[in-house]
Amino acid sequence: GDHGRLLIHCADRPGIVSAIGTFLAGAGANIVTLDQFSTAEGGGTFFQRTEFHLPGLTATREELERSFAATVADEFDMQFTLTEARKPKRVAIMVSKTDHCVLDLLWRNRRGELDMNVVMVISNHPDLATDVRSFGVPFFHVPATRDNRAEAEARILDLLRGNVDLVVLARYMQIITPTFLEGVGAPLINIHHSFLPAFIGAGPYAKARERGVKLIGATAHYVTADLDEGPIIEQDVVRVDHRQDTPDLVRMGADVERAVLSRAVRWHLEDRVAVHGNTTIVF
Amino acid sequence: GDHGRLLIHCADRPGIVSAIGTFLAGAGANIVTLDQFSTAEGGGTFFQRTEFHLPGLTATREELERSFAATVADEFDMQFTLTEARKPKRVAIMVSKTDHCVLDLLWRNRRGELDMNVVMVISNHPDLATDVRSFGVPFFHVPATRDNRAEAEARILDLLRGNVDLVVLARYMQIITPTFLEGVGAPLINIHHSFLPAFIGAGPYAKARERGVKLIGATAHYVTADLDEGPIIEQDVVRVDHRQDTPDLVRMGADVERAVLSRAVRWHLEDRVAVHGNTTIVF
Amino acid sequence: GDHGRLLIHCADRPGIVSAIGTFLAGAGANIVTLDQFSTAEGGGTFFQRTEFHLPGLTATREELERSFAATVADEFDMQFTLTEARKPKRVAIMVSKTDHCVLDLLWRNRRGELDMNVVMVISNHPDLATDVRSFGVPFFHVPATRDNRAEAEARILDLLRGNVDLVVLARYMQIITPTFLEGVGAPLINIHHSFLPAFIGAGPYAKARERGVKLIGATAHYVTADLDEGPIIEQDVVRVDHRQDTPDLVRMGADVERAVLSRAVRWHLEDRVAVHGNTTIVF
Amino acid sequence: GDHGRLLIHCADRPGIVSAIGTFLAGAGANIVTLDQFSTAEGGGTFFQRTEFHLPGLTATREELERSFAATVADEFDMQFTLTEARKPKRVAIMVSKTDHCVLDLLWRNRRGELDMNVVMVISNHPDLATDVRSFGVPFFHVPATRDNRAEAEARILDLLRGNVDLVVLARYMQIITPTFLEGVGAPLINIHHSFLPAFIGAGPYAKARERGVKLIGATAHYVTADLDEGPIIEQDVVRVDHRQDTPDLVRMGADVERAVLSRAVRWHLEDRVAVHGNTTIVF
Repeated sequence: GDHGRLLIHCADRPGIVSAIGTFLAGAGANIVTLDQFSTAEGGGTFFQRTEFHLPGLTATREELERSFAATVADEFDMQFTLTEARKPKRVAIMVSKTDHCVLDLLWRNRRGELDMNVVMVISNHPDLATDVRSFGVPFFHVPATRDNRAEAEARILDLLRGNVDLVVLARYMQIITPTFLEGVGAPLINIHHSFLPAFIGAGPYAKARERGVKLIGATAHYVTADLDEGPIIEQDVVRVDHRQDTPDLVRMGADVERAVLSRAVRWHLEDRVAVHGNTTIVF
Repeated sequence: GDHGRLLIHCADRPGIVSAIGTFLAGAGANIVTLDQFSTAEGGGTFFQRTEFHLPGLTATREELERSFAATVADEFDMQFTLTEARKPKRVAIMVSKTDHCVLDLLWRNRRGELDMNVVMVISNHPDLATDVRSFGVPFFHVPATRDNRAEAEARILDLLRGNVDLVVLARYMQIITPTFLEGVGAPLINIHHSFLPAFIGAGPYAKARERGVKLIGATAHYVTADLDEGPIIEQDVVRVDHRQDTPDLVRMGADVERAVLSRAVRWHLEDRVAVHGNTTIVF
Repeated sequence: GDHGRLLIHCADRPGIVSAIGTFLAGAGANIVTLDQFSTAEGGGTFFQRTEFHLPGLTATREELERSFAATVADEFDMQFTLTEARKPKRVAIMVSKTDHCVLDLLWRNRRGELDMNVVMVISNHPDLATDVRSFGVPFFHVPATRDNRAEAEARILDLLRGNVDLVVLARYMQIITPTFLEGVGAPLINIHHSFLPAFIGAGPYAKARERGVKLIGATAHYVTADLDEGPIIEQDVVRVDHRQDTPDLVRMGADVERAVLSRAVRWHLEDRVAVHGNTTIVF
Repeated sequence: GDHGRLLIHCADRPGIVSAIGTFLAGAGANIVTLDQFSTAEGGGTFFQRTEFHLPGLTATREELERSFAATVADEFDMQFTLTEARKPKRVAIMVSKTDHCVLDLLWRNRRGELDMNVVMVISNHPDLATDVRSFGVPFFHVPATRDNRAEAEARILDLLRGNVDLVVLARYMQIITPTFLEGVGAPLINIHHSFLPAFIGAGPYAKARERGVKLIGATAHYVTADLDEGPIIEQDVVRVDHRQDTPDLVRMGADVERAVLSRAVRWHLEDRVAVHGNTTIVF
């Protein structure tokens, strides 16, 4: 627990880097990496992510937080979070029937590639129970249909509330309501397929094939009230041609989806993603 | 002139490959490459591109064409074109003010990478006259505004008609009317930027930046009555992040555009692109 | 069992496509896809892969084979194989301790993405027994060291001989001897990391990092007597920068390795890969 | 001249970020971007690149430099450079007969994409004189053969010495001697093709084709006494298959080379590249 991460943002003005650097040096911390970004050259918003090494951090983190708030944060009217790098975030994964994203996350977690504590998997279908439980992770089946949506969301909120730091929608095909978003108290990351140009509505892979697209892709983003329109964390594409039929496109899309989602989740777990309006800064 | 290319399409049924192969063997031709594709396993459309070597082709091409029409094409109710590989297509390039696409095409043509005869560059602005003429290519300035569109299109059609086998829109920012499309008598290839998701209307790069996209791309396609919706020939993307401002995105987009356009033009010049509905088959 | 694949190669000369097309049409087969390639324009080697649909193929395959041999193959001095598309190949996977490649293959097999019958996994370490067996696949532990190599290879050959159509080395870290290659009677596909430029010997990721490489990759190839020098089937790379330490590079390399290996195996299973000298033609 | 860039490196220890931040704030500068990197978590080397805005910088740069040296740099035993962002570097391009890299650099310079002052192009062949001079850039022909190498290098050194901040080898096919490297007094960036695996000696594209490689690439690096082994700045690859013959590979390689070289030069011009041993840190 000797590694900390300090994320801040505030209105840009001279002296911020200096103030944070001086504070951390004074606390006995050694800065390991520091990334910062300003959204404009004058009058922009300033973002900074600092990783530091400070012996005994676990014991002194709360005191450090208070001290930073009272001195630097207050002076610069700063929003900040201070986390311990080695304290894994608690994650819930929500999924419907498709297994490629959830299994990839669980497998990377087991290999030590994703430093998280998967506290539960929730699904509106029972299909993936055995697969999920073989990783030692609890699986909860909460049937959800158009008719019982409010009730199902209430049950899911009961499971999540207070228990999770992040919710990953790993091909969860139910609508997320504003009520749910407000109640869950943790950020949500979603993955969906992406095309150039976009194809709206059902059967996007079939439509993409009809247009003769040469690239199919995936986008991972934070969920906002507008489900598929939140700030983008990561995207990628794969090349296709006329020889791939629609099932081939779906299969190749699945490979891109799991790769993109795992990168987005990884960066979130490492506190690398700052949100600014509908944009992300990925340090 | 000893290399020929035979492109055909027709309703799929047994015996097509055999019939073409037998015809070409009988004519003394040696097949160099053959690609074929069927859009469905039964009842689809069959496409085939055959490159062959036939000594004396230039002298006998018309006779070969008649003979193929009377025998194979007639039997299978086939559409076909038979071209000589070494006879470069006549190409007109239309451009507005932006130079990256037109100069890349001219430069690749001069290096021998694009086997075409650029017979003219037409622009609604005079800016690129010197650059274009330094390649020894005629430059015609045809001012076009919202008010004189019909007149300008008529002037351009006078220049093009009968003189070109292909028109490349290399960042030509005027609307192409259905009248123009009908009158020009040659296919048109257009290039435009592409994003996942799509950003409609003016300032797409600024909008893409506001959404935090991580990839920007370009699409080259044939022009149909619906300007940005014709069959896609080629696409590609480049990775970006929050550190690139809008001019950076425009510059990186320009690099993708010229690469994608030159590949699409090259494939068209080599008779590699077959159109099927709104799809392309790129052999 | 109504789908067949015919792969041929022979010295190039006029009439091959025609002869094959005529033979298949005469047998009542409809050609679904046909790819061919000639290594040179005159005097080269000609390769062709034909997928066809022929009702009742399973019952008549041997008769078809004899008939093709006696007519077309004999006339053109042709090597050929005729397979049924729906008869999955029998595959053995050999692995040491690293799980990413073997689990990815098993998982894709279970999802239906790789049409093969994995008849056994052989390892010189016991570590992966539970993981492998959870897929319902037999796991055989054959300890192999420098001292017992001949004995270990003999045991492995006993397991493989007559039982497999393909052996996949999915991060198997023991040397493969020429004796083994001769005895196994099936092609072997291997995967290894790749860099530009190459880094020889132990610790290649550490060396790559010291040189500041910006790309790390993987190569899948057939195994010949020269272990890492056989014909390449597939390659890919991923972008890295100075912020990734050696374990990061290893992890990112693992992702490329499993993607590249699964594509190479898939193409082999679909009879898409023809070998010519030390080159492959991937149809 | 109001934008400055401060690049430093020194042994890592607590307080560096704070000291620099405090110095710049005290001088009235506002930090625009700041990137830093430490090569190890304890006892490593610390690198930092800071872009700042300081009204009147041109008039006060030398004073600022002295002041920084006397205070911060001295205390931390720091190497540093302080440049004005808007003062373009003076660049010489050396080339043999191949035009794709040099023309791409000149064209990007003219478009404003590469902020440099190309003061001369030197070639051991006269072929590119007209093309280069059409950009308004002086072209010097210095014939170089195995026999007159010392003399030719001396002539080139006379042209370069004191006149350039960077030399770009844009496909310059002569050997660079240690004498030349010592005498030139400016860094050199070179571009060469790259393959996985590497192919040594003459005709690498032909060799790559014989092995059936699926990717060909390019590497841009600083030149050290070991010509092709200096710290790598940038690399990229393009996908190929069996249908490309050797001239196709050369052409596709040329596209990658010019893209990779222009990115490497751009990053150098913006003072983004720090060298550490045989590695680069590209901020």
